[in-house]
Amino acid sequence: MITVLSGGTGTPKLLQGLKEIVDPSDLTIIVNTLENDYFSGVYVAADIDTVLYTMSDLINDEFWYGIKGDTFITNEALEKIGCPELLRIGDRDRATKIQKTILMEKYNLAKACEIQAKNMGLECKVIPMSNEHSEIKLTTDIGELPFHEFLIKHQQKPEVLDLQFSNVSPAEGVIEAIKNSQAVIIGPSNPITSILPILSLEGVREALKDTYVVAVSPIIGTDAVSGPASKFMKALGIEVSSIGVASLYEDFLDNIVIDDKDSNLCDEINQIINKVTITNTIMNSLGVKKNLAQTILDSIPK
Amino acid sequence: MITVLSGGTGTPKLLQGLKEIVDPSDLTIIVNTLENDYFSGVYVAADIDTVLYTMSDLINDEFWYGIKGDTFITNEALEKIGCPELLRIGDRDRATKIQKTILMEKYNLAKACEIQAKNMGLECKVIPMSNEHSEIKLTTDIGELPFHEFLIKHQQKPEVLDLQFSNVSPAEGVIEAIKNSQAVIIGPSNPITSILPILSLEGVREALKDTYVVAVSPIIGTDAVSGPASKFMKALGIEVSSIGVASLYEDFLDNIVIDDKDSNLCDEINQIINKVTITNTIMNSLGVKKNLAQTILDSIPK
Repeated sequence: MITVLSGGTGTPKLLQGLKEIVDPSDLTIIVNTLENDYFSGVYVAADIDTVLYTMSDLINDEFWYGIKGDTFITNEALEKIGCPELLRIGDRDRATKIQKTILMEKYNLAKACEIQAKNMGLECKVIPMSNEHSEIKLTTDIGELPFHEFLIKHQQKPEVLDLQFSNVSPAEGVIEAIKNSQAVIIGPSNPITSILPILSLEGVREALKDTYVVAVSPIIGTDAVSGPASKFMKALGIEVSSIGVASLYEDFLDNIVIDDKDSNLCDEINQIINKVTITNTIMNSLGVKKNLAQTILDSIPK
Repeated sequence: MITVLSGGTGTPKLLQGLKEIVDPSDLTIIVNTLENDYFSGVYVAADIDTVLYTMSDLINDEFWYGIKGDTFITNEALEKIGCPELLRIGDRDRATKIQKTILMEKYNLAKACEIQAKNMGLECKVIPMSNEHSEIKLTTDIGELPFHEFLIKHQQKPEVLDLQFSNVSPAEGVIEAIKNSQAVIIGPSNPITSILPILSLEGVREALKDTYVVAVSPIIGTDAVSGPASKFMKALGIEVSSIGVASLYEDFLDNIVIDDKDSNLCDEINQIINKVTITNTIMNSLGVKKNLAQTILDSIPK
């Protein structure tokens, strides 16, 4: 069993490679649920849906959000009648979200995801990090901002001065998956807003200490491959580099995979983490994704 | 000012005629809200939306539900993923319902309707009969049934043995509209499930007694022109005919409009209601709708 900790962009790219070379029934994906909430009447678990769509080959992998080829008739009608959606939801994607919302009237999020994953014919397990509502409080140079407003309305432009997560409990299966895994892969997702929420759950860091953990750095040089990771790392006083990423995970990490371009950081990272693996981490083709996945798997002790 | 009491099919047909010959700013439409509820995460006020769409020329007047030319991408996706909608909602129609749902987080239904009517450029007033949740309890030959299950899942087939409405208060503006109107028109909607809920509101029957009221019978011979009116009338022990309709409204009705085909009922109805107007009530063309509307208007004392 391999467990992957995932956010919504970088890690799903890796999952596209991983699912080609690992038996999906050996795969558990623990997914970030930070700032999941109700929008336009439906529960939006953005990262979970991205993982579900990725594993069922439905993902719109231009935006890493929603279903490829989806239409936006309701979304455009809402715009037209003066009720624009903060989160743009496609018509087929909306059906997934409506189904999840209806399921959640009866079940918790974990059970709702399990049912939807089965519906989609998935053999892997997709587990939300928590069934509880998880928020991030952002203090920026223009005041406190709700996360989605920062991301979308303000296009990630304000400087982040401080951030704080709400305290939530892990969903059933999270700790067990980590404990029963041969290895845990931390995907190249935003270390602060995608991975740290998972690591902050009670018992997760402790469980990781007893398991082989390999992380893929989402930073090359001093820039995130995608998304606003740098801003958040700076806000927490963490160096924006693979060194900073290594320091975030140092209490449990066994191996960090960094990009070829960062090979000069090797020595310094080695003072924090025992093992550094250097390879191409820019996943712009299925070939690179599979190679990266294979490199990670090869690094796991038999 | 003319006030119309409306359900979701017969009366909107009449409204199509009425809106062509009356200044819409002189028109208030009080709409049935029986069994409005949340479906697929959105608040569905079926009759209200039908009236809004009718007055803004958007109505799908084949089904008297939803927007003409609408697509059903989300609805079909829900069906495909094993989560069929009890109420079929089109993609553009869903936007209206999402907007209403969002508005209702802040406002009551009456205010939400007012905002949506203005958005649609309507000059008439569209008022829900009540802001409170209004239910009908059906006892049928196969047991107690929720209204929408009876209508859709069981296709109105079970025999209705008894029915009971929940007690709700009129929305702001309902009593005032009746009191300030030159005349109230009761459209040819289902007398039991569309009109009786409005008449059952505290103060409505009393207000109608002081106003000129003209009703269009939705029954020709012993059959409803459309919908399950007959079943419900039988359940309440009311004769399924324009005579039965007249008897339902007899305490306040000044004039009943019945179809040409029922001219033989004239004498008997005259024993219940002072005035009977005979004309073509089968509204299968805009011409008939306008003629019926004009006949009604002509009958109102100046």
